[in-house]
Amino acid sequence: MRYSSRGQVDPFIVMDVMEAARRLEEEGRHIIHMEVGQPGTGAPRAARVRLAAAMEQDALGYTVALGRPDLRAGIAALYREWYDLDLDPARIVITAGASGGFLLAFSALFDAGEAVGMGIPCYPSYRQILKAMSLQVKGLRTDASTGFQPRPEQISEDLAGLILASPANPTGTMIQKSALSDIAAACAARNVALISDEIYHGLHYDAPAISALQVTDQAYIINSFSKYFSMTGWRLGWMVVPEAHLRVVERLAQNMFICAPHAAQVAALGALSPEGRAELDENRAVYAKNRLLMLEGLRAAGFDSLAPADGAFYIYADISAFDWPAKDMAHAMLNEAGVAVTPGLDFDPDEGHRALRFSYARSTADIEEGLARITAFMARHRK
Amino acid sequence: MRYSSRGQVDPFIVMDVMEAARRLEEEGRHIIHMEVGQPGTGAPRAARVRLAAAMEQDALGYTVALGRPDLRAGIAALYREWYDLDLDPARIVITAGASGGFLLAFSALFDAGEAVGMGIPCYPSYRQILKAMSLQVKGLRTDASTGFQPRPEQISEDLAGLILASPANPTGTMIQKSALSDIAAACAARNVALISDEIYHGLHYDAPAISALQVTDQAYIINSFSKYFSMTGWRLGWMVVPEAHLRVVERLAQNMFICAPHAAQVAALGALSPEGRAELDENRAVYAKNRLLMLEGLRAAGFDSLAPADGAFYIYADISAFDWPAKDMAHAMLNEAGVAVTPGLDFDPDEGHRALRFSYARSTADIEEGLARITAFMARHRK
Repeated sequence: MRYSSRGQVDPFIVMDVMEAARRLEEEGRHIIHMEVGQPGTGAPRAARVRLAAAMEQDALGYTVALGRPDLRAGIAALYREWYDLDLDPARIVITAGASGGFLLAFSALFDAGEAVGMGIPCYPSYRQILKAMSLQVKGLRTDASTGFQPRPEQISEDLAGLILASPANPTGTMIQKSALSDIAAACAARNVALISDEIYHGLHYDAPAISALQVTDQAYIINSFSKYFSMTGWRLGWMVVPEAHLRVVERLAQNMFICAPHAAQVAALGALSPEGRAELDENRAVYAKNRLLMLEGLRAAGFDSLAPADGAFYIYADISAFDWPAKDMAHAMLNEAGVAVTPGLDFDPDEGHRALRFSYARSTADIEEGLARITAFMARHRK
Repeated sequence: MRYSSRGQVDPFIVMDVMEAARRLEEEGRHIIHMEVGQPGTGAPRAARVRLAAAMEQDALGYTVALGRPDLRAGIAALYREWYDLDLDPARIVITAGASGGFLLAFSALFDAGEAVGMGIPCYPSYRQILKAMSLQVKGLRTDASTGFQPRPEQISEDLAGLILASPANPTGTMIQKSALSDIAAACAARNVALISDEIYHGLHYDAPAISALQVTDQAYIINSFSKYFSMTGWRLGWMVVPEAHLRVVERLAQNMFICAPHAAQVAALGALSPEGRAELDENRAVYAKNRLLMLEGLRAAGFDSLAPADGAFYIYADISAFDWPAKDMAHAMLNEAGVAVTPGLDFDPDEGHRALRFSYARSTADIEEGLARITAFMARHRK
């Protein structure tokens, strides 16, 4: 049976790490998971209580394609709280995860063959989804000098779109308001559609992240209930789109998704409640503690070139100094020390062999144990 | 801000009907809903109980991209029961609804610009999803003589794929095994990828529907928990793909969806349980009763050209004899009689102005009341 060429997307390197970790666990080894990009916690209790009650009263059939009005209103209230923005709930589109948001955004904005830019390193699925949709990927090389964010002069007119991510995965870095403003202006000047991936908003450890919506209305904002809201498996996200794009996006959503999962929409209402938010802020306090332990512990273990880790729950380490390919180092760290980490290659096919991503989204006890193992592992290998 | 041309998909005509019905309800009118394509029932009790218990014990984070192994095994068992087939659970891919299945299938199989055929009338989103993915739509005209299913000689070599649906929406017709076998052979001979939409399987009223898997392994089978399993809003479906396609589909699923909603996967396990199945079979008994009432009542009201209604919960009526455009007739039926029905135009842009689709997925009391209103309405207009 035939295949398409656009369907031949790259495998994730991290899947090999996860599979190797799983096999070791089956053999009885205890593994510390610093490779996974999801919270160790589940949905807040208020989310689960809300859904349990709704399941007794409501058939939970299709919602309208743009999502439940009460949820859209709840998200608009969040924009008031987080960014001091007065956002019309009509501009909010509830999506099947951020993944669903990207599929809708790319369909609404780009035709087959067009090129979309993004800073490298980046979330690997950007590249693969673009390929599956017959779009070209244009990686824009970034480095520590701009916090691994692209520069306005990299936004050329051959681009149809630009994906920006702040806080970014894998680096955890955030873009400053003036730099974001310059990027938005460059996009507007060159007719480049700006897509701002803000799925790690809410997870910051000093100043909060800036939304592209604070500098322009002419952007697609993509967000999710997976990270700060700790609801990964529920597959729920949202977009904010320019008012003029609403009808186009609504029609695409009706046909491509019908609606986002109704049960997840109900649970999200609980997550947005004061009780839900209180639990989520406790989760964030754990990440904040983990982050400090990680920054200190990794430096003590010899990783002295770390990205700033402004937000999200990742630390990206430049391991050039060790002259040890990331894949091999990750392999050894897993097998010898029982700590699973992600080699940089998924995020950066060209330079990622010189980087590791450490996630600190699990419990503090796991972080402490993991750091002790990493320290011993590094000491052994630096002899 | 820029738009794509592929994102400019058609609106649903039925949305206008639903919006008009909603406005009448706001004004205090009582409306019988025969326009909607979803069960009036929610998920079976066993599904809700299972999820409620799981929410207390499990974080419900991401599952692997192909879905929970226990759910894939449960679906394989269903293939043994329904079709007497021994299906390897490894070939089953859990998807975000049938919608997610189509997005994965079209990405894996077709490159931009290729043409995909389908019998007309058909589910309107086939056409729109194909357009959003830069694929060409080739409608194959069908009629009552083949139960509104395409004929093998319509499968030409310029097609990259063919979508088949049995039981079909909007007609409710099913394809016979020999005809399905001929279609599969024609597809294989002309290198046309066969996609069999089987989302209404389980909802038959005489002989059960035949799966394409009973005549070939070289097809993508798309199914869903939305119809027989009565879980529309949960957005859960599955695909069966040829063994050689598994890795391609898995990588696409990892990137495009990460996974299908975990909560829905847990609920689906409950729906597959003996208690769940018993409740679903009671739902089907209601549809069976409704169907007989509808066939008799619509004929008595003057609709004497009805498609066979072998399965699903639709009756497609040819209204040519009335010389009344479907959109106008649906409008009058809603406003005068308070019965919402779907004009055929969404399913068949060329000929659908001569057809109405009636859904009988709601309660029997609704069906009886709706038929009484339709009968009076038609009597008034035939004077």
